[in-house]
Amino acid sequence: MTNVPFQFDLLARQGRARAGVFHTPHGDIPTPIFAPVGTQATVKAVTPAQLQELGARLVLSNTYHLYLRPGDALIAELGGLHEFMQWPGPILTDSGGFQVFSLAKIREIDAEGVTFKSHIDGSTHRFTPEKSIAIQENLGADIIMAFDECPHPYGREQVSAAVERTHRWAERCLQAKTRSDQALFGIVQGGVYPDLREHSARFLTGLDFPGYAIGGLAVGETKPEMHAMLEVVNDILPAEKPRYLMGVGTPEDLVEGVARGVDLFDCVAPTRLARHKAAFLRRGRLNMAKAEHARDPRPIDETCTCYTCQHFSRAYLRHLIQAKEMLASTLLSIHNIHTLLELMREMRQAILEGRFEAFYAEYGGG
Amino acid sequence: MTNVPFQFDLLARQGRARAGVFHTPHGDIPTPIFAPVGTQATVKAVTPAQLQELGARLVLSNTYHLYLRPGDALIAELGGLHEFMQWPGPILTDSGGFQVFSLAKIREIDAEGVTFKSHIDGSTHRFTPEKSIAIQENLGADIIMAFDECPHPYGREQVSAAVERTHRWAERCLQAKTRSDQALFGIVQGGVYPDLREHSARFLTGLDFPGYAIGGLAVGETKPEMHAMLEVVNDILPAEKPRYLMGVGTPEDLVEGVARGVDLFDCVAPTRLARHKAAFLRRGRLNMAKAEHARDPRPIDETCTCYTCQHFSRAYLRHLIQAKEMLASTLLSIHNIHTLLELMREMRQAILEGRFEAFYAEYGGG
Repeated sequence: MTNVPFQFDLLARQGRARAGVFHTPHGDIPTPIFAPVGTQATVKAVTPAQLQELGARLVLSNTYHLYLRPGDALIAELGGLHEFMQWPGPILTDSGGFQVFSLAKIREIDAEGVTFKSHIDGSTHRFTPEKSIAIQENLGADIIMAFDECPHPYGREQVSAAVERTHRWAERCLQAKTRSDQALFGIVQGGVYPDLREHSARFLTGLDFPGYAIGGLAVGETKPEMHAMLEVVNDILPAEKPRYLMGVGTPEDLVEGVARGVDLFDCVAPTRLARHKAAFLRRGRLNMAKAEHARDPRPIDETCTCYTCQHFSRAYLRHLIQAKEMLASTLLSIHNIHTLLELMREMRQAILEGRFEAFYAEYGGG
Repeated sequence: MTNVPFQFDLLARQGRARAGVFHTPHGDIPTPIFAPVGTQATVKAVTPAQLQELGARLVLSNTYHLYLRPGDALIAELGGLHEFMQWPGPILTDSGGFQVFSLAKIREIDAEGVTFKSHIDGSTHRFTPEKSIAIQENLGADIIMAFDECPHPYGREQVSAAVERTHRWAERCLQAKTRSDQALFGIVQGGVYPDLREHSARFLTGLDFPGYAIGGLAVGETKPEMHAMLEVVNDILPAEKPRYLMGVGTPEDLVEGVARGVDLFDCVAPTRLARHKAAFLRRGRLNMAKAEHARDPRPIDETCTCYTCQHFSRAYLRHLIQAKEMLASTLLSIHNIHTLLELMREMRQAILEGRFEAFYAEYGGG
């Protein structure tokens, strides 16, 4: 197998589902894959060593947060994000667009960019496509994202305007990019509108990005709408490029996404739910704070091979939660991340062995 | 070397300093040693696997806390504390006495025991020597403590009364004890009064415990007073039994304690200071929250071999603190525990090789 940075080797397909390898300067990413999120240059409550033990290969970090604190120039001065957070494998940074629209207080959106106030101290900042790329070049991730406008998924006129703006910004991001050791992905928008999604996928395909993200999903639309959009978009995007569904998900969403041709996923869910006392099952989840776990000697999931399930009882986890001990967040994060990574490894193997349909039926997808 | 539970093999002495091995049902404890504290059946912010990687051999847990939550009967039902918290090595539990006097609201102290209100929910409870032993037998630690009264170190009359009560309670603890796989240590009290300390050490030595704790220090007295008390007590306690200085310490206190014949130490300092953003140096400490660390690419301590110092810059740690990330507490706890464990390993090796005096002079002790 070749090892050219940003080459995507498609190894097997079954229906829309795909298994492959995406080559990056910091290592190969077997796909389909789930990327844990390290918003502030740390995947909350776990060490990089624990992430490596979990078999994580790709980690996401947030441009908006790192720009505000500690600052992308400081991270560049300290050798870049890999060195700063001591993650030796591939890293993906988002463009900051989603956070500007969801966390910050917007002052003004215009054709050039977005002026916003920091959610930390209220100070005023401005992101443009060029600025987003400059920050992401300072951070130095392997995969970087085009700056996009992520609108509410309903409201045809607004979504259509956001699609056009996202396309202009995508062209400017390609122009602004200077580093050859980073892959810039374009982001397909279009809300819940099949024709807008189709238009966006076709336009961005024409710009020949090394990979494509599907944005503006998992933001309030229904599951059938999300699934329909994935099918529309993935039937247009070029087969030889990786496809990344942003901000998804749960075990069930990952299975549905892979079945519809998605290669990369990221989501804060495994670590955020852990801090809210929820443990993923292969399907569904448990609220570990419940009194019913107080005397239960069983692990969260008797079939799970993670450090948490190999050692600790539900009773102990519930005790840690009651006692407000940090270890609860760490052990639940380890379990939740493992559950998603393991599910992705299972799906990849099933695709490689030509039995994804059976896997999907057994899982109860659809 | 023999491996009889609770036999203490004294391997070398230099001045008052000693190196040995204390045999327990869950493994050998090389002494002198520092025990990290897992108050609520978890050493805060680190996993048992991380503790093992740090080379921790003995862990302390608190009877008062575990009695109140989740309850010692529940822990017994789940197989005991080793199984519950998944610490495979030796465990020491305190008697609950110190916490009753420092955390709870005392309702009444009498000759029989102490009635107090829970610091969690205000409910009323009563500890007696017999109750403390029964709880500690439910928990199942390798080393358990006699129930004692820990008074303010100044005030001769009160301290003298506490010494006498502690002696009566020590006799009752010996009577109450039923398990042969636990070593019950007596606790020497006596505040800052050499004659009371001497009296207490002699009386308890007569009861022939398998080990002795020195209580009521590091509770407000001066360093010279603490050092003087250690010398008085350790010159009386039998050489062939381990001596445990409760609730100490800092790097400096460990060196002074070992120099005065202490074999075991425990303290919440390394993990509590970590949560308060302080990093131990071999001597002294750094406040990692300070702005001066913001751009510093160096580790906390360039000579340190811990996971934190081998990977992360002061700038990154300071960023984690600013961003209120849990990983800050984990990485600082790892470093602080390592610093104490490593200092103990160094001192043990120096004693075994007959060069503790040189070590002590080089460290700047005294």
